[in-house]
Amino acid sequence: MKALVLERQGALTLRDVPPPRSLGPGDVRIRVHTVGICGSDVHYFQHGRIGDYVVHAPMVLGHEGAGIVVDVGLGVTGLKVGDRVCMEPGIPDPSSRAAKLGRYNVDPAVTFWATPPVHGILVPEVVHPAAYTYRLPDKVSFAEGAMVEPFAVGMHAAARARIAPGDTAVVVGAGTIGIMVALAALAGGCARVLIADLSADKLAIAAGYAGIVPVNVTESDLADTVLAATDGWGADIVFEASGAPSVWDAMLCAVRPGGALILVGLPPGPVAFDVNAAIAKEIRIETVFRYANVFDRALQLVAAGRVDLKPLLSATFPFARAVEAFERASEGRPSDVKLQILVDEDA
Amino acid sequence: MKALVLERQGALTLRDVPPPRSLGPGDVRIRVHTVGICGSDVHYFQHGRIGDYVVHAPMVLGHEGAGIVVDVGLGVTGLKVGDRVCMEPGIPDPSSRAAKLGRYNVDPAVTFWATPPVHGILVPEVVHPAAYTYRLPDKVSFAEGAMVEPFAVGMHAAARARIAPGDTAVVVGAGTIGIMVALAALAGGCARVLIADLSADKLAIAAGYAGIVPVNVTESDLADTVLAATDGWGADIVFEASGAPSVWDAMLCAVRPGGALILVGLPPGPVAFDVNAAIAKEIRIETVFRYANVFDRALQLVAAGRVDLKPLLSATFPFARAVEAFERASEGRPSDVKLQILVDEDA
Amino acid sequence: MKALVLERQGALTLRDVPPPRSLGPGDVRIRVHTVGICGSDVHYFQHGRIGDYVVHAPMVLGHEGAGIVVDVGLGVTGLKVGDRVCMEPGIPDPSSRAAKLGRYNVDPAVTFWATPPVHGILVPEVVHPAAYTYRLPDKVSFAEGAMVEPFAVGMHAAARARIAPGDTAVVVGAGTIGIMVALAALAGGCARVLIADLSADKLAIAAGYAGIVPVNVTESDLADTVLAATDGWGADIVFEASGAPSVWDAMLCAVRPGGALILVGLPPGPVAFDVNAAIAKEIRIETVFRYANVFDRALQLVAAGRVDLKPLLSATFPFARAVEAFERASEGRPSDVKLQILVDEDA
Amino acid sequence: MKALVLERQGALTLRDVPPPRSLGPGDVRIRVHTVGICGSDVHYFQHGRIGDYVVHAPMVLGHEGAGIVVDVGLGVTGLKVGDRVCMEPGIPDPSSRAAKLGRYNVDPAVTFWATPPVHGILVPEVVHPAAYTYRLPDKVSFAEGAMVEPFAVGMHAAARARIAPGDTAVVVGAGTIGIMVALAALAGGCARVLIADLSADKLAIAAGYAGIVPVNVTESDLADTVLAATDGWGADIVFEASGAPSVWDAMLCAVRPGGALILVGLPPGPVAFDVNAAIAKEIRIETVFRYANVFDRALQLVAAGRVDLKPLLSATFPFARAVEAFERASEGRPSDVKLQILVDEDA
Repeated sequence: MKALVLERQGALTLRDVPPPRSLGPGDVRIRVHTVGICGSDVHYFQHGRIGDYVVHAPMVLGHEGAGIVVDVGLGVTGLKVGDRVCMEPGIPDPSSRAAKLGRYNVDPAVTFWATPPVHGILVPEVVHPAAYTYRLPDKVSFAEGAMVEPFAVGMHAAARARIAPGDTAVVVGAGTIGIMVALAALAGGCARVLIADLSADKLAIAAGYAGIVPVNVTESDLADTVLAATDGWGADIVFEASGAPSVWDAMLCAVRPGGALILVGLPPGPVAFDVNAAIAKEIRIETVFRYANVFDRALQLVAAGRVDLKPLLSATFPFARAVEAFERASEGRPSDVKLQILVDEDA
Repeated sequence: MKALVLERQGALTLRDVPPPRSLGPGDVRIRVHTVGICGSDVHYFQHGRIGDYVVHAPMVLGHEGAGIVVDVGLGVTGLKVGDRVCMEPGIPDPSSRAAKLGRYNVDPAVTFWATPPVHGILVPEVVHPAAYTYRLPDKVSFAEGAMVEPFAVGMHAAARARIAPGDTAVVVGAGTIGIMVALAALAGGCARVLIADLSADKLAIAAGYAGIVPVNVTESDLADTVLAATDGWGADIVFEASGAPSVWDAMLCAVRPGGALILVGLPPGPVAFDVNAAIAKEIRIETVFRYANVFDRALQLVAAGRVDLKPLLSATFPFARAVEAFERASEGRPSDVKLQILVDEDA
Repeated sequence: MKALVLERQGALTLRDVPPPRSLGPGDVRIRVHTVGICGSDVHYFQHGRIGDYVVHAPMVLGHEGAGIVVDVGLGVTGLKVGDRVCMEPGIPDPSSRAAKLGRYNVDPAVTFWATPPVHGILVPEVVHPAAYTYRLPDKVSFAEGAMVEPFAVGMHAAARARIAPGDTAVVVGAGTIGIMVALAALAGGCARVLIADLSADKLAIAAGYAGIVPVNVTESDLADTVLAATDGWGADIVFEASGAPSVWDAMLCAVRPGGALILVGLPPGPVAFDVNAAIAKEIRIETVFRYANVFDRALQLVAAGRVDLKPLLSATFPFARAVEAFERASEGRPSDVKLQILVDEDA
Repeated sequence: MKALVLERQGALTLRDVPPPRSLGPGDVRIRVHTVGICGSDVHYFQHGRIGDYVVHAPMVLGHEGAGIVVDVGLGVTGLKVGDRVCMEPGIPDPSSRAAKLGRYNVDPAVTFWATPPVHGILVPEVVHPAAYTYRLPDKVSFAEGAMVEPFAVGMHAAARARIAPGDTAVVVGAGTIGIMVALAALAGGCARVLIADLSADKLAIAAGYAGIVPVNVTESDLADTVLAATDGWGADIVFEASGAPSVWDAMLCAVRPGGALILVGLPPGPVAFDVNAAIAKEIRIETVFRYANVFDRALQLVAAGRVDLKPLLSATFPFARAVEAFERASEGRPSDVKLQILVDEDA
């Protein structure tokens, strides 16, 4: 079967690969319908590595997928052939210490699609544990289903934030993940979300959602804006989704006494953290690594119409033009939020 | 000044009463604009008591209020003359053990408007601590402001529920409080709320909100309906807002393993609680007594348009017809959610 | 191999049974050393059932065990032959919805030793998943190891209680589980535990521990005693470990405003629950079903000497006298806390 | 009356000062018995400032105090003349937004003894709100009572850590606060605490307590030691009580996946924080600012004998030799944990 293979840094080909592993107990076989392009896919394409994860051998890209169940393994009860599904790309050892605690995302043994040396899903067919495969409600399209994975990062951030209904949040960074976080924060109970970025294009997309207030930090001081919007008290929750080390002082200034700072973005190196400022307000800091136990709840929100992911789909490419899709993604156009590839061109 | 006085059980008069206490440090004087009628006001009118709280002497009714600040006491910094406000009716000892813990609502020394022997606010003017008086955002009307108090019960229930974004909730009872709980649960992060009642009229009002699914328990079994809607797993959270002792078995059946049951309604006597059923699912039960620390967040949600209280206002009466308003409230029309009295007829 | 088999209600025999299932991946084979007798074992012996769990076919009893690893399956890394271990008797589907949430104890698919139709471990050898098998620290004896299972119930109750350091707790019931809860509550951060029972013998055993204050409810009123000991404020946490329906009013009176009630004991039927009293104090209620994720932490406390289980071992019987051990357990001597059977008589 | 006055940096005198403010409603007047010397007192003495807090005018030092109630103001019910007490030195605005949330310690308006320009309590008599004055149980001495304040920092750290019973903790720094944190962590539910320092003297004092394991980081690598002690899993909780910026990488390495890092120590400047390492383990970080709502629970633990503060008292000086006491404190002898001054020499 044909797959989109990252042969090495900078070299993508659409070529034959071996079929997926055979169907085991608890597995489902899925015909892949749609796969979104993640910033990490683009990063591997451009740089051949992300931190310690290095592409030493050809690797299939893609981990944001939706498709149709075409076969079910022994013992699978919750899914059947024909079900439309999306997939959670990380597979933990379900009996590991972390997994037993309900935090399977931090199981050191987890394998994750399109993270070297594990292949991704820009292929016609994959085999996956049913436990990490989720049926799409009727109202949720494949395109939306394939966006559940990036939205899940926002959902997990919102869950770890422990939002109190009516909270005011700030999201630093209006990239794809920043917007996902903002949507999840709103759906998760915030009254309003101030989102900060340097890019007017990105802010314009975010501001298209009711409840999201853009803050262009080339024009306004973030902390001042937040304090003005909260009678000087500060935001209940500040989400860091930019990875920019320079935002830390503003975040510590913008958060209220007893508030929370939620770290999602990965900075390029250590940040200078003013511990004393954090202590003086006794803030709580949560970190967010991928997600756990949120795909089902994300799907409920999308199905109920409480979160609309459709405006975030910028363009869809047929599988035959998958390389072109990656070239577009590599441009990093500020008005592009999510690019997807329609893998199943017969669909 | 004129006030609506419950002289004794069944006897309401609009007559002169002494002016409010003088303005102390930290207080504000408020010209009352609008006051909503609560079920407890009606209950005192009809029965002269609620449990151990007995109307032994004439008492002014009303505790759901909005108005305008007309004077501020020494040390008040957050409010000024002319501010439009709503008021939290319970005043704790702020230095009490419960208040120091942030749970001032359960301070045994709390005094609460229109709870014998404390007078309510169906009067032209009241004096109240600024700390329990909240400025209305520009977009929030007095009518909405006076509905923040009952909505606050729902907000507090939603806060104590610790909703995870995308949860499915059930609310038992579609009376005023049940609807308030449902709205707060949705705004607080639920993907959907199934609301159960016997009254088609009440359910129709609730079902007017996107995200609220009515369950008429004269037609459908509640537990079956919830299990069918959740693939047999059950609801993450079940709010009890009816006070009906008969619903307990259905609630324990409808909640998912590890889910939560939130008790808001006051039953007429002890309920028969199947502890073993609760233990087998290891459910958590939270109880909700009035509210604490939610007025500000409730106002944010209303101002942001994330909660629309306006459809719940069934009728408004001028102060001169306040007795008539109570007579209407006493009828308990199923299509009435909230009746309000416009106290300041010059407004 | 010989096993202690409950042939039917009232009929115990020590007789040959088939060997355990073969060793699979992730499993360990354990030579059983010591097994404690649980109240549930005795209940099956005496009544042939517990609620809906009915002994329809001969069943091996016993689920509180410690032993030695004699073989390890494929992929097992944390344990090796010769390791001294104790075992968690419930085996969930690790990929179930409940297990993914970290609450594998409420997975509806869990199987549990000596719960019909699953055999227990009063046999020379068992095969068990390594993930639910815990190495005993050097300082922990087999007898103590076999007591970790009942202590785990107390540990789980203490964990769900969310004790704040220095809390005052009440434990209702000084049976084996009540004492285990009291020990876990103290080790888990309580400054003191008042334990209530009718039996002077049981109370004397509990009171042998520093920090546990006995309350004989035939002599003193529980609520009065708790209020007197807390300046009228009430206990932070009340654990129900008796299953007695009659204690509910006293518990609601004894708990402080904003406090917690933790339900461990299984009452014989529904209890009369004064919801209004619970709401007036806004108490939280947690229920406790067996345990999850506590065996390792229980072992740390025992190994560190912070919990001493040894005084709770009342008598040890050789395997050949296992039936006699059950007859003694059936007497329900108030001075007996834990009886154990030494299965490996060569040890 | 005579007081120990810091006239300016480096200049301490024992001289007359005006009497305390008059007794208001809710206040008590306290004859001061014993006052401990805190590192902050010494810092003001040596440097004339701590960060933005500068000694511009003569200031009485001392905030760790115990004494006897000699008068009570209007409305005080929980205390009476003759009660032995200790005092919480920070006084918030009890109606502030932070205080209403139960987090009065982060109220920006809080005043705190011996923090410029507020005078401390190295004086014979003080007036203080009864709400922040705590009766000493009979078994608790004045010396212990005056140590409740520093112990409260440890208590608050332990409370914010949300220890699960049986957790393994690490405390970085074996100074007075580090030891207080370690004691609170053990009393608060930890099975064991590894405490790290460079000073053999300090470690020896800490290691005198059962359950505290010293790690001399001049001899052993902290992260390696912690991983070895936890089968490679890491510590559940790491408390930072040294303020040393250099320990951050070791802490992030030593904490388990999903564990928590609790920040107590104040570093001299920003620390280099490896956000990616924190995210990869999805750790939670809590910060600790003084304390709130812990004095009563601290006293329960001391009274119950579950925490023994007595070994931490290194020397006691009569009031007349208070300046000498500060000179000794300024030496920073590694074997000194707590020095106290007996203010009431007639006692």
